[in-house]
Amino acid sequence: MFDTIAVIGAGNGGKASAADLALQGKRVRLFELPEYAGNLEAVAQSRRLIATGAVAGEAELERATTDLEAAISGAELLLVCTQAPAHDRVARILAPLVRPEQVVVLSPGSTGGTLHFANVFRQMGVERLPILVELSTLPYGCRASGESVRVFVKVGRVKYGVLPGRETERIGPALEALYPGFVRSESVLEAGLNNGNPVIHPAVTLLNAARIEKEGAAMYFYRDGVSPAVARAIEALDGERMAILRTLGYPAQPEPLTCVQQGYATASGYLECYSQGPGFIDFRSPDTLDHRYLHEDIGMGLLFYTSLGRLLGVPTPLSDAFVTMGSALSGIDYRARNARSLDSLGLSGMTVEALKEYLQSGVLPPGA
Amino acid sequence: MFDTIAVIGAGNGGKASAADLALQGKRVRLFELPEYAGNLEAVAQSRRLIATGAVAGEAELERATTDLEAAISGAELLLVCTQAPAHDRVARILAPLVRPEQVVVLSPGSTGGTLHFANVFRQMGVERLPILVELSTLPYGCRASGESVRVFVKVGRVKYGVLPGRETERIGPALEALYPGFVRSESVLEAGLNNGNPVIHPAVTLLNAARIEKEGAAMYFYRDGVSPAVARAIEALDGERMAILRTLGYPAQPEPLTCVQQGYATASGYLECYSQGPGFIDFRSPDTLDHRYLHEDIGMGLLFYTSLGRLLGVPTPLSDAFVTMGSALSGIDYRARNARSLDSLGLSGMTVEALKEYLQSGVLPPGA
Repeated sequence: MFDTIAVIGAGNGGKASAADLALQGKRVRLFELPEYAGNLEAVAQSRRLIATGAVAGEAELERATTDLEAAISGAELLLVCTQAPAHDRVARILAPLVRPEQVVVLSPGSTGGTLHFANVFRQMGVERLPILVELSTLPYGCRASGESVRVFVKVGRVKYGVLPGRETERIGPALEALYPGFVRSESVLEAGLNNGNPVIHPAVTLLNAARIEKEGAAMYFYRDGVSPAVARAIEALDGERMAILRTLGYPAQPEPLTCVQQGYATASGYLECYSQGPGFIDFRSPDTLDHRYLHEDIGMGLLFYTSLGRLLGVPTPLSDAFVTMGSALSGIDYRARNARSLDSLGLSGMTVEALKEYLQSGVLPPGA
Repeated sequence: MFDTIAVIGAGNGGKASAADLALQGKRVRLFELPEYAGNLEAVAQSRRLIATGAVAGEAELERATTDLEAAISGAELLLVCTQAPAHDRVARILAPLVRPEQVVVLSPGSTGGTLHFANVFRQMGVERLPILVELSTLPYGCRASGESVRVFVKVGRVKYGVLPGRETERIGPALEALYPGFVRSESVLEAGLNNGNPVIHPAVTLLNAARIEKEGAAMYFYRDGVSPAVARAIEALDGERMAILRTLGYPAQPEPLTCVQQGYATASGYLECYSQGPGFIDFRSPDTLDHRYLHEDIGMGLLFYTSLGRLLGVPTPLSDAFVTMGSALSGIDYRARNARSLDSLGLSGMTVEALKEYLQSGVLPPGA
């Protein structure tokens, strides 16, 4: 079903995905935005990626291009491998080109990315939306440089959701054939709420704010940054995330257990998981708070929790506190910016039942 | 007017106060709670304190005792030199003994300490309350050990308020004779809101939580702990404090300017003041979050800001966020504990006008 695949975004995740899928025998096109063309420099001529680690081999690409139409034309699957703040831009340039029979996978979905794509596509007049798929996490722990990509971890368990949910049966088997670790969710929202970043990154970042600004990469982000109190904050945020999932009628499990299943950690206690997990321990700190750990994980992820909490009647006091404090530290009023909420997604004013019906049907109720 | 003085609490502040006042020729009794009798051990026999620094000399005490009645009997002035969490205990043991003609000074008042003393005295049936005085800050930067007390700073500017405010004219001159740096406030609430600790300590503590738990005293609390983002958080909290003061009709000035006037700092920018101020720079970190920086400065100080903000219609989002986050980190629900609020002080349900009238008259309105 998915023989020709366009990978959109040629950063770490994009190159790991392109290499993995090409080594599985797929025809792979690797696209990058013109302003990041440097990411394609080494591969533009050779059309080759050299992968080592959990994915290994010399992978041949069909194309490496900054021409989006050339990248996606004839592709059955579009794999969007960008950070969440770039989703809006990618959705806008895809809107005039994407075909209803194509499947667009956000890898990762960053909690609600598919809902944002759907909203942008509708606003830009796309009449029949492509099927949208949201992954709970990037399926690789990886670093790329030039032609080389090192894959530390191929993630053992990735939740995915499909919009509309009723298409899951039809396209699920082909997706699961590409990624054996894929596990079905009932909806893109269930998959998105299995993204652990909003409960992990903001707590470690804010509760180490001075050291991050002063020491940067000299600090090990998790090994130095996760103390018992930080672990308690992560646990409390995770409690809010799980309460939202359960109130939506979805299963919920503690984030550290997910980390163990994914292969990032070996112990499922909050402190041990993040401070000692093999997938966390050698990770170095960013050197600024002008970073996606705030802009994406607070300004989108936790902000979305507070929006869902209001709809569901689930208290999210700690998510709210992080949004307020993150805004004070970054100087960006994340509530005013409103980058991810039911309102920003065009889904405000719906009942919980109408929202869940929309997630299954992909059809907005009249008046929404 | 104040010739015999009982100093209650024989920690750093109590010993500095006792030495300073004895060296001014006052008859000084030094009291400590029996469970902290160790603080009196070295001075019980010698009745002597040896002060060095901004206060210097060999000071003779009239008494050093764990007998409260012996300490305060015949004293015109009672100087309470304890941390805020001990105020409740001290008020309860003073209630049966204190005389209406005595003046009780809280040094420092920790934002609302006098209002708490008044509430406890009333609850315990004291018919005529003593005059209560609240200091914005301890008048000394000091460390005591045994007979010795080192006074780094004699604070150049200490705001004080009197309850009832109408007594300020009568007792002010005698207080100002003891402490030339004393500056009158209109009320104990104005003085209390000039206590800078709630805007400084919680921000530095929470935004360095992991490092405090992991490194303790190896970390310089301010030099290492105050980065640009931390300074922004302090500034934002200070904005909430000043908005409360102004809405009450009191003057307000930025906390770093107060630090310069007090002698703790030389620059009045938020970052420079705390990260480089001579009174801050050598200060080492506590090694636990089970500390008054949370229990007192969040659980009492910032919690009180949120309570005043609700009465006044002044938004205090960052104070609220710190209360929520501090509760998550410490495991103590500071809102449920309610250690300082208009409600805990017996002042809920009053209008702003009635509150200000009470602060002047010391007489609660009927029904309060």
